[in-house]
Amino acid sequence: MGKIFMLLTFIGVPLSVIGTLMHWPTMILFIVYCITIIALASYMGRATESLAIVAGPRIGGLLNATFGNAVELIISVFALKAGLVGVVLASLTGSVLGNLLLVAGLSFFIGGLKFKRQAFNVHDARHNSGLLMFAVIVAFVIPEVFSMEMNDTKTLTLSIGISVILILLYLAALFFKLVTHRGVYQSEKSGTAHHEEEPEWGKGKAIGVLLAATLAVAYISENLVHTFEYVAESFGWSELFIGVIIVAIVGNAAEHASAILMAYKNKMDIAVEIAIGSTLQIAMFVLPVLVLISLLFTETMPLVFTMPELIAMVTSVLLMVVISNDGESNWFEGLTLLAAYLIMGIGFFLL
Amino acid sequence: MGKIFMLLTFIGVPLSVIGTLMHWPTMILFIVYCITIIALASYMGRATESLAIVAGPRIGGLLNATFGNAVELIISVFALKAGLVGVVLASLTGSVLGNLLLVAGLSFFIGGLKFKRQAFNVHDARHNSGLLMFAVIVAFVIPEVFSMEMNDTKTLTLSIGISVILILLYLAALFFKLVTHRGVYQSEKSGTAHHEEEPEWGKGKAIGVLLAATLAVAYISENLVHTFEYVAESFGWSELFIGVIIVAIVGNAAEHASAILMAYKNKMDIAVEIAIGSTLQIAMFVLPVLVLISLLFTETMPLVFTMPELIAMVTSVLLMVVISNDGESNWFEGLTLLAAYLIMGIGFFLL
Amino acid sequence: MGKIFMLLTFIGVPLSVIGTLMHWPTMILFIVYCITIIALASYMGRATESLAIVAGPRIGGLLNATFGNAVELIISVFALKAGLVGVVLASLTGSVLGNLLLVAGLSFFIGGLKFKRQAFNVHDARHNSGLLMFAVIVAFVIPEVFSMEMNDTKTLTLSIGISVILILLYLAALFFKLVTHRGVYQSEKSGTAHHEEEPEWGKGKAIGVLLAATLAVAYISENLVHTFEYVAESFGWSELFIGVIIVAIVGNAAEHASAILMAYKNKMDIAVEIAIGSTLQIAMFVLPVLVLISLLFTETMPLVFTMPELIAMVTSVLLMVVISNDGESNWFEGLTLLAAYLIMGIGFFLL
Repeated sequence: MGKIFMLLTFIGVPLSVIGTLMHWPTMILFIVYCITIIALASYMGRATESLAIVAGPRIGGLLNATFGNAVELIISVFALKAGLVGVVLASLTGSVLGNLLLVAGLSFFIGGLKFKRQAFNVHDARHNSGLLMFAVIVAFVIPEVFSMEMNDTKTLTLSIGISVILILLYLAALFFKLVTHRGVYQSEKSGTAHHEEEPEWGKGKAIGVLLAATLAVAYISENLVHTFEYVAESFGWSELFIGVIIVAIVGNAAEHASAILMAYKNKMDIAVEIAIGSTLQIAMFVLPVLVLISLLFTETMPLVFTMPELIAMVTSVLLMVVISNDGESNWFEGLTLLAAYLIMGIGFFLL
Repeated sequence: MGKIFMLLTFIGVPLSVIGTLMHWPTMILFIVYCITIIALASYMGRATESLAIVAGPRIGGLLNATFGNAVELIISVFALKAGLVGVVLASLTGSVLGNLLLVAGLSFFIGGLKFKRQAFNVHDARHNSGLLMFAVIVAFVIPEVFSMEMNDTKTLTLSIGISVILILLYLAALFFKLVTHRGVYQSEKSGTAHHEEEPEWGKGKAIGVLLAATLAVAYISENLVHTFEYVAESFGWSELFIGVIIVAIVGNAAEHASAILMAYKNKMDIAVEIAIGSTLQIAMFVLPVLVLISLLFTETMPLVFTMPELIAMVTSVLLMVVISNDGESNWFEGLTLLAAYLIMGIGFFLL
Repeated sequence: MGKIFMLLTFIGVPLSVIGTLMHWPTMILFIVYCITIIALASYMGRATESLAIVAGPRIGGLLNATFGNAVELIISVFALKAGLVGVVLASLTGSVLGNLLLVAGLSFFIGGLKFKRQAFNVHDARHNSGLLMFAVIVAFVIPEVFSMEMNDTKTLTLSIGISVILILLYLAALFFKLVTHRGVYQSEKSGTAHHEEEPEWGKGKAIGVLLAATLAVAYISENLVHTFEYVAESFGWSELFIGVIIVAIVGNAAEHASAILMAYKNKMDIAVEIAIGSTLQIAMFVLPVLVLISLLFTETMPLVFTMPELIAMVTSVLLMVVISNDGESNWFEGLTLLAAYLIMGIGFFLL
C-alpha cells in the first residue's frame, strides 16, 4: 500500500506541475490531480500520525483533530477563493455523507463478513451521536430555516455566530476527551493496546513530510478547482455531483482505506472513530473555519446548504444514530448504510 | 373467530358476485366487498402460515414475508390499473400508520392492561428500528425533497432506483435473519417455543385455499376500487381519507386481530414482529414492487408522497423508534401510540 | 435565597401597583414587573410544594403537575386577552427551549463540574423521551404541516382535537406515574429519600400564600403584557425575541434555580424531573389549555407555530432524546445543550 502511494506521489507531483505548465487536456489534468492528491493525503495522514505519537496523547489528539482533514480544508480554501461557494458546501456535504455512510458502511460490511458480531465502545458511540445531533440537526438546520426569513446580512451574522460556537464546542469536546474524561469510559482491554504504538517517522522527518505534502496539495488543489466546470460539462454532471461525490472521495480516500482495514482486523473502536470522528471534524471544525475564512474573500459563504444537501445529512445522521446506538455492528447494518449512500448518490447525480 | 370468517366468506363471495352483476347500490357493494375481503384475508393468512410451517423456517419466512400483505398488493394493483395513484400511496401510508401506531398501540395497551411490564427482544427491536429509519426516513424522504428540483422523468428514474434498492435490502434483511444470523440474537426461552408448531392445513389444501382466496380477493378488489369515488362523495370524505384509514384497515384487519391476541397472551415478540414486520414489508417490498408494476400501466407511480402523508410516517417512525428502544412496553406506551394515530386520523379526515 | 425573594416581593408588589397607577415610564414598569413576578413565582412554587407534601404523593403529584407552571399560564391568558397570540406561542416555545436546553444544560454542566459522571433514572428518562417525541414531534408537527392545506376553520378544529388529546394523555401519564406504575421503575435508593420530606408551610398558610401570590401575579401580568410592544421597539427587539427569551426566563426563573441546585447536590433525578417534567407540562398541559381558553376570546390560537419556533423545538427534543438516552450526564453534555440554546437565542434575536 505504502509503496503504491510513494510511486503515485513521485510520478504524480512532477506530472501535475508539467501538465499544468504545458496546458494538457483538462480531463487528463483532472485525473492526474485527483490521483496525486489521494497519494499525498496518505503521506499527510502518516506524518500527522507520527507527530501525534511523538507529541503524546493530548497534543497528538489535537494534531489529529486539526490536521486530519487538512486536504479538504486546502482544496476548499482554493475553491472559495475561486468563488465556488456551492462546490465547497457540496464537497463538505459529500465528506459528511462519505464518512458516515460509505466509510462506516464499508467498515461494518467488510468487518461483518468476517465476524458475526462486532462490538465498539458504546459510550463513545453515544458521545459521538450527541455531537452529530448537535452539529447537523441543530447547527445546520437552524440557519437553514431561520435564514428563510432573514436578509443576507443577518444570515451571515447568524452563520458567523454558529461557526464560532461550533469551533468552541469542538475544542471543548477535545478537552473533554483528552483531558477531563480521558479513559473514564474506556474498557480495560482497549486501554492497553495503544501503549505499544511507535511512530513511523521521527519528529523532524514527519514535520518535513507534512510541510512538503501540504505545499504540494495546495499547489495541485488550486489547479484542480479550475477543472471542475469543464469536467462537469464533459460528463454531463452537475457541479453539485462533482462536489458531493468526486471531491469527497478524493479528499478522504486514505482515511477510507484505513478504517476498512481496522474493521477487517476487528478493531471496530478505531474504525468507528475514523468514520464518525472524521465526520465531526468536517462538521464542527473544517466547515465553520471555512465560513470564517470566506469573510476574507469577495464571496462569503453562509452556513446555508441547499435543501437536498441538508436533508441528505440530516437523514444520514438519524440513521447512524439509531444504527450505532447499541454499540454493535454486523454486515447487514453496513449494507444498510451503503444502500443509503447509493440512494443519495443517485439523487445527487440526477439533480 | 374462524367460524365467523368462514360464514362471512361463504356468504360474502357469492353476494359480491351477484351484487356486482346486478348493479346493486354502490354503498351496499362497498360494504359487502370490504367485509368479504377481511374474511378472505384471514384465509390467506392461515394458508400462508400453514405453508410456512411445512416449508421450514427459511422458505417459510420468505413466504410470510412476500405473501403476508398480498391482499394490499392485489387491491393496490387494481387501483393502479384504474389510475388511482393517489389512493394507492394513501392506502400504503395508512398501512404503515395502522401497523405502527394502531396495531402496535393496541397490542401494547391491551397487553399492558393485563401485565405491568412486557418485554420483547431488544435486538430485534433495534434491527427493526434501523430498517424503519432506512425505509421511511431515508428512502421516502430523499425522493420527496430531491424531486422538488427535478422534472418528472428524473423523479421516476430516482423512484425506480430507490425501489430496486429497497427490494434488494429487504431480501438481504431476510437472508440476514433467516440464514446468516438465525438465532444469533435470540434468547433461549423464545427459541424452543416455535418447535411445537403444527400446520393447520396440509400442503395441498393450503395451496388450494391460497389460490382460491387470492383469485376471489382479486375479483372483489377490482370492483372495490371503483366504488371509492362514490363512497368518498357520499360521506364527504376525501379519497385520501378512504385510502389512509378505510383501505388500510380492511387490508390489515386479520393481522391486527392476531397481534393483539399475542400481546394479550404476553407473547410480545410475536406481536411486535407482526406490527413492525408488516410495516417493513409494506415499506420495503409492497410499495417498491408497486412502483415497478406501475411502469406497465399508463399512469406511473413515483415514490413521492404528499407532504402530510410523508410527515405522518416520519413522525410515527421517530415515535416508535424511541418507544421501542428499551425492549419493554406498558399500557401507557400503547396509549401514546394510539393517541398519535388518533391525531393523524383527525388530520387526514379534515384534509 | 428565600429572604431575597421575600424582600423583592414586599418591595415589588407595592411598587408595581403604585407604578401602574402613576403611569411610570414603561421601561421601568417592565423591569419592576419582571422582578416581582420572579419573586412571586418562587412563593407559588413553595406553596405548591408544601401543599403537595401535605396531600400525599398522588394528589401532590397532580398539584405539582397543574400548578407548576401557573405563572406562565396566567401571563399567557392575559396576553391572549390582549390579542397577542404570537407572543403566547413564542413564550411557550421559549419555555420549552429554556427548560430543555438552558435548565437541563446548566444542571448537567454545573453538576458535571463537581462530579465526573452523574446518573439519573434511565426508565424515567426514556418515558419522558417518549412523551417529548409525542408532544413536540407528533402533536406540534402534524398541525403545522396539515394546516398548510387547510382553511382556518379546519385548522382550528384540528388544533382543538389535538389539544384535547394532549390534555387527556397528560392526565393518563400522571395516572400511570402516580397510580398504576408508582415505584415500578424506581431504584431502591431514591425510593426512601422522599419519606423524610416535611412541608415548609401548613395547609392553611400554603393555600393562603398560593391564592395571594396568584392574585398578585395575575394583576401584574395583565399590566406586563401591555409593556411588550414598547420594550420591543425601544431595544429593537422583535416581539418574538421578547416571548422566546425574556418571558420564558421570567416565568421559569425559580424552577431554573432549584434544578441547578439539585444537580449541584448530585440529585440528578430531581434536576432532570424539573427540567423535562416542566417542558412536558408546558407542551402537554399549559399550551393545549391555552388553545381551548383562546376560544373564549375574539382572537383564537390555533396550534400552529412559526416555522423557526417549531424547528427549534423539534431539534431540541431530538438532541435531548439522544443525550439523555443513556441515563448519564457530564459537563460536556451540559455544554452541548447550552450551545444549542445559544444558537437558538442568536437566531431568534436576529429574526
